[in-house]
Amino acid sequence: MTTAVTDALWPLPITELARRIAARELSSADLVGASLDRIARLDGALNSFVHLSSAALDAARAADAEIARSGPRGPLHGIPIAIKDNYTTADMPTRAGTAVEALTFPAADSHAVARLRAAGAVILGKLRMHEFAWGMVTPPTRNPWDLDRVPGGSSGGSGAAVAARLCPAALGSDTGGSIRIPAALCGVVGLKPTYGRVGRSGIVPHSWSLDHAGPLTLTVADSALMLQALAGPDAGDPAASAAPVPDYTAGLDRPIRGLRVAVIRNHFFDAVDEDVAAAIEGALRFLAGQGCTVRDVAVPSLRHGLGAIYAIELASSTAYHDRSLAQGHVAGFAADVRDLVEMGRLVTGPDYLRAEQVRALIMDEMAAVLAEADVIVGPASPLTAWRTDESAVSLGGRAESVLAASWRLTYPFNLTGLPAIALPCGFDRRGLPISLQIAGRPFAEAEILRVAHQYERAHDWWRRVPPLVG
Amino acid sequence: MTTAVTDALWPLPITELARRIAARELSSADLVGASLDRIARLDGALNSFVHLSSAALDAARAADAEIARSGPRGPLHGIPIAIKDNYTTADMPTRAGTAVEALTFPAADSHAVARLRAAGAVILGKLRMHEFAWGMVTPPTRNPWDLDRVPGGSSGGSGAAVAARLCPAALGSDTGGSIRIPAALCGVVGLKPTYGRVGRSGIVPHSWSLDHAGPLTLTVADSALMLQALAGPDAGDPAASAAPVPDYTAGLDRPIRGLRVAVIRNHFFDAVDEDVAAAIEGALRFLAGQGCTVRDVAVPSLRHGLGAIYAIELASSTAYHDRSLAQGHVAGFAADVRDLVEMGRLVTGPDYLRAEQVRALIMDEMAAVLAEADVIVGPASPLTAWRTDESAVSLGGRAESVLAASWRLTYPFNLTGLPAIALPCGFDRRGLPISLQIAGRPFAEAEILRVAHQYERAHDWWRRVPPLVG
Repeated sequence: MTTAVTDALWPLPITELARRIAARELSSADLVGASLDRIARLDGALNSFVHLSSAALDAARAADAEIARSGPRGPLHGIPIAIKDNYTTADMPTRAGTAVEALTFPAADSHAVARLRAAGAVILGKLRMHEFAWGMVTPPTRNPWDLDRVPGGSSGGSGAAVAARLCPAALGSDTGGSIRIPAALCGVVGLKPTYGRVGRSGIVPHSWSLDHAGPLTLTVADSALMLQALAGPDAGDPAASAAPVPDYTAGLDRPIRGLRVAVIRNHFFDAVDEDVAAAIEGALRFLAGQGCTVRDVAVPSLRHGLGAIYAIELASSTAYHDRSLAQGHVAGFAADVRDLVEMGRLVTGPDYLRAEQVRALIMDEMAAVLAEADVIVGPASPLTAWRTDESAVSLGGRAESVLAASWRLTYPFNLTGLPAIALPCGFDRRGLPISLQIAGRPFAEAEILRVAHQYERAHDWWRRVPPLVG
Repeated sequence: MTTAVTDALWPLPITELARRIAARELSSADLVGASLDRIARLDGALNSFVHLSSAALDAARAADAEIARSGPRGPLHGIPIAIKDNYTTADMPTRAGTAVEALTFPAADSHAVARLRAAGAVILGKLRMHEFAWGMVTPPTRNPWDLDRVPGGSSGGSGAAVAARLCPAALGSDTGGSIRIPAALCGVVGLKPTYGRVGRSGIVPHSWSLDHAGPLTLTVADSALMLQALAGPDAGDPAASAAPVPDYTAGLDRPIRGLRVAVIRNHFFDAVDEDVAAAIEGALRFLAGQGCTVRDVAVPSLRHGLGAIYAIELASSTAYHDRSLAQGHVAGFAADVRDLVEMGRLVTGPDYLRAEQVRALIMDEMAAVLAEADVIVGPASPLTAWRTDESAVSLGGRAESVLAASWRLTYPFNLTGLPAIALPCGFDRRGLPISLQIAGRPFAEAEILRVAHQYERAHDWWRRVPPLVG
C-alpha cells in the first residue's frame, strides 16, 4: 500500500470508515494495514504504542470474510482500535506502564476489550501510559502537534495515537482526567462516561471509586459509537451499572434550543490561559446563539476538591499497591510514582473519611446545579500542551505546577462521577489545541454528546491535522 | 402514689399500657409519675439516668387532656420513654457521656426524639452511655440482674432502665452492638433496624457508616410499635432511606411455618458459653418445631470482620473527633476512649479502604445466605453479663477480653447494615439473661419481628423481673 493510499484513509472518522466498509468500498485488512503502515512511519517520533498485535491482520481478514458473508455487525466491525496498556488483553501482554518484571497481569480480555471484539473491532495494539495511570504526562510519548511537548496523561499514548491518526479510536482510563487531559492536549475527543456506565473488570485498578473507562476518538459521533459498544453491565465490576443503555447516536442532531447551560464561574475559570478563556467564551456565545440559556453558577465546595481527590486517590492507589510495597516492588517504580505510592501511606483513615465528606458536599452542590441546568460547560484544561522540560506555568498571574494545573478542571467530574466530554475548541497562538468540556447528569451521556456534536459540527476543528505528522 | 400502685404498672409493656390509656383506665400523668417514683427508688443503685425532664409531668398532663378530648394519637401517646444521651433534646442538655465541658451539643430535638414526641410519647429523661458511644460497658451503670455486673454498652443506661422497669422503652444507638449488647446482658429486647431505616440527624456521630438508631423495649411487639414511630425519611441524614414503611405489627402473629432459617455456624458459634449455646440450640429446635427449615451455613469472610470494623470505627470516630484532638479536648476523655480516639489516627487510608473491601465481601456472602434463607438466627452475645471487675473470659477453652467477646456476634450486622434484633432466650446457671439474635434482609424488619414475637410468645422470658429491683 502506498503512503498516498494510507494517508487518504486518514483523517476519516469511524462513521465514514464504517460507511465505506459497509458499502464494500474498503476492507478491514486494508484499513488495518494502513494503520500499521502509518504507525511504522510515524510512531518512532511519537512513541505512543508499546505493543502491536500480531493477530490484527488476521482478525481484519476474518472481519472481511464475515462482512462479505453476512454484512457488518455494526459500525465498529473491522475498525482498528488501540487499547491503553492497563486493559488486559488475551493476545498481548499487559504492563500498565510499569517496568517491574515481577508484576504480571492476566492474559485475558478485559470487559471493555471483549465488548469491542464482540462488536467486531480489530484490536490493533497497546498504548503507552504513565505507570499505573499515575500522572498527567506519559514519557516518552510526544504530542503530535509539537514533538517538544507532552501529550498529557495518563492515557498519553491514546491521545497521541488518535491525534496523529495512527488509528481512529482508542481506549483510555480516567481517574482524575486521564482520558480528557490527553484528549485536550492532543486535540481529540475524550469521553469519561458516568461512574459505572462502562465496566472496568480487567483494568489494572488505580482508585476504585474514581476510575472510569472510556474512548478517545476524532469526533463526537465516533465517541457515541464507542460508548454504545462499551456501555452496559459487567458482572466483574461491582460498581458497574445495570441502568438501561439508550441509543447514543439517535439524538445527536436534535436541536439544542432551550437547553439550559450552567457555567461554573468559580474554580473552572479561576486561572485559565487567555487564549483558552477566549475560545471557551466563544463556545458559550455559540451555545447562546443556538438558543441555549447560559447561566453562571458557583460550586463553592470545589475549593476543597483538590485535597479531597488527592487523599482518595493516594489512599486507594496505595491500598492496591500495598502488596507491591510489602514485597519491595515499588522500589522499581518510576521515581514520581514511587513517591506517590509511598505517600499514600501517610493519608490517615480520618483524612480519607473527611475527603469523602468533601466529595459528598461537592456532589450535592453539583446536583443542585444540574437540577436547574441540563449541562455544565467550561474548559477541559486551563492550559494547552506544555513543553516536556516545563514544570510550572503562570496562569492568571500566579505560578502553578503544570501537573496541578492540568487536572484542575477534570477531577471534579471524577469526584462526582458525572459524565464529561472534552472536545476540540480551536487553537492557541502557538497552534496548540484548546479543549471544551461538557458535563451532565448521571447517565445523561446522550445529552452531553448532543451538545458536543452540535458545537463540533459548526466548527469542525477536528479536521485540522497535526502539522508534524500530517 | 403508693409503691404498690407504682409497681403494679410494671412490668407492663407498651401494648398493655396503651390499651389502658385508650380505655381511660390509666392516665399518662399517673404512668409518668409511677415511672419517676420508681426511678427515685431504684436508680440510685443502677445509675441509669443522667437527667430527668422537668417537663415530663406537664407533657403527660397535656397528653391526658388531648386524649380526653380526641382520643390517643396512637399507641405511644402518653407513654414515658427515655433517651440515650447522644440524642439531642430541646428541653434537656446532651452530654453524650463526656465530661469535657467545652464540648456542647445543640439544644434541639434530634429527628428520632421529634418523631417520638409527634407520636405523643412523653420524653422522660436522658440515659447514661459510654463516652461518645465507644465501649461495651457503661460505668457507673449497673446491671439490674446483679448489681456487681455490667449492663453492657454503650447504651447501658437504656438496657438497665428498661430491664429495671424504670420506663417501658428507651432509645439506644448501635455502632457495633451498642443496642443489642445491653439488651442481651440486661434481658430486654433491642432492635438495630436496617442501616438508613431510622434517621440519625441530631445523634452525636460515632461512625457514620456503622451508626444505627433503634429502641430497647420489654417485648417484641413494643419494639414494632417503636419502630413504627421512628422509621421513615430524615432530610438531615444523607443515609436515611425513603423506602416505604410497612405496618410492623400487622403480621406478628402470621405463622412462620415454612420459613427458612439460616444458622451461621462459623464465627457465631466459635466460642460461646455453654449455657448460652444450649439456650440457642433450644430456640433453633423451637423454630424447627414450628415448621421452619433450619439450615447450617458459613460466612467465611467473617474471619476478617473484626479487623475491618475496628479500622472503620476507629477512623470514623477519629475523623469526627479530629477538631477535639486539635483543640486538646481529647485529653479530657475517659482513658479508654482517649486511647481509641488517638489510635484512630494510626489507621491509614489504605487500611480503611481494605477494611471497606472486607466489608463488601462479608456483605456479598451474607446476601448469598439471605438469598436462600429468610432469617439468620444465633446468639446475640457469647457470654452473659460479666462482673465489673472482670476483663477477660474463657470461652471454648480460649481466653478473650470481655470487650472483644461482647461485640463479636453483633458487629457483623453493623458492617452489613442488616436488621437484627436481640431478645431474651432464657437464663444461665447464675440467673443472668441469655439473648437470641435474629437478623434478616435489608428493610425486612417485619420478618425478624415476626419470628422474634413468636419465639417470645411461646416462652415469655420477658415476664421474669430482675430480683434485685423487682
